[in-house]
Amino acid sequence: ADSPNKEIIYSNRGMTLEEDLNETNQYYLANGLAVIHKKPTPVQIVHVDYAKRSTAVIKEAYFRQASTTDYNGISNGRYIDFEAKETKNPTSFPLKNFHVHQIEHMKNVINQNGIAFVIIRFSTSEEIFLLEGEYLFRYWDCMENGGRKSITKEELATYGHSIEIGWAPRIDYLKVIRNLYSF
Amino acid sequence: ADSPNKEIIYSNRGMTLEEDLNETNQYYLANGLAVIHKKPTPVQIVHVDYAKRSTAVIKEAYFRQASTTDYNGISNGRYIDFEAKETKNPTSFPLKNFHVHQIEHMKNVINQNGIAFVIIRFSTSEEIFLLEGEYLFRYWDCMENGGRKSITKEELATYGHSIEIGWAPRIDYLKVIRNLYSF
Ligand SMILES: [Mg+2]
Ligand SMILES: [Mg+2]
Repeated sequence: ADSPNKEIIYSNRGMTLEEDLNETNQYYLANGLAVIHKKPTPVQIVHVDYAKRSTAVIKEAYFRQASTTDYNGISNGRYIDFEAKETKNPTSFPLKNFHVHQIEHMKNVINQNGIAFVIIRFSTSEEIFLLEGEYLFRYWDCMENGGRKSITKEELATYGHSIEIGWAPRIDYLKVIRNLYSF
Repeated sequence: ADSPNKEIIYSNRGMTLEEDLNETNQYYLANGLAVIHKKPTPVQIVHVDYAKRSTAVIKEAYFRQASTTDYNGISNGRYIDFEAKETKNPTSFPLKNFHVHQIEHMKNVINQNGIAFVIIRFSTSEEIFLLEGEYLFRYWDCMENGGRKSITKEELATYGHSIEIGWAPRIDYLKVIRNLYSF
């Protein structure tokens, strides 16, 4: 008979994809499975107030466009690099969510024998997919040649990998990657 | 006879260690040798003004302490992670320039089979040394057990690797690492 635990379906509890991934990465770190961190948001600092003796206060700064992806690190000798994206679109993922620099960066990573991918979350249905860089580039290059500007959920289910949300880790993308790359 | 080019000694031209390393990393990227970037400065954003239609202005933010190192990336399948430090001390490098989190991070990286090291620049003499994490940890752990709070320049010359400043790349740390780790 099935164990009752099998029936438990975890929900997102209103956490963002970023919060879930940060918890996941903390789990990997605490368990010696990987060292993967989110990069800080790139900010151009224009004016800092040092008047208060204890704390410098940034009084004027601007968001800069990221030239790389959000997350990178290492697991068992393999370099891992990925971008996380959420969409409210219920049926397909719009490629305009990427900047050309992020795609170029992922291509450079794969050329250096690293592992690059994207984690896409559909926020209305809470479905999560992992798509390897090599597949993402096909859709991107196709778009640049006048093709479709999105990836359908069906295509993600076919060419990518669905990830069920869990308790700990919340989004076990490392399991998918370790299977795909046998490490 | 020696070629006249051999006599050229490049100087720092007033550039900071960070600027030199960014140029170096751009050289590596442009030549397909490595994909290594500096992480953005971690900032806690408290207040953003969206009043101007075109640009969000960060009006209040604070510097956060970095929990990892400054630079990471990949070269030929190897994960690379390092911290860059400058000191005005002419004869030794004070270990208080590190936070305990940065040391822990470098230990975690090496446990995952990554390459972790520090690049130290003595700003008065413009001398640059690369010291592998494994050696840095010995000095750090010794200090934590009541030992000396610094690494002398002689020790860096003995256990580390001197790097001459060049034209392109400016600080060829990858050559040192590729020799040490044979890749
Ligand atoms: Mg993102
Ligand atoms: Mg630094």
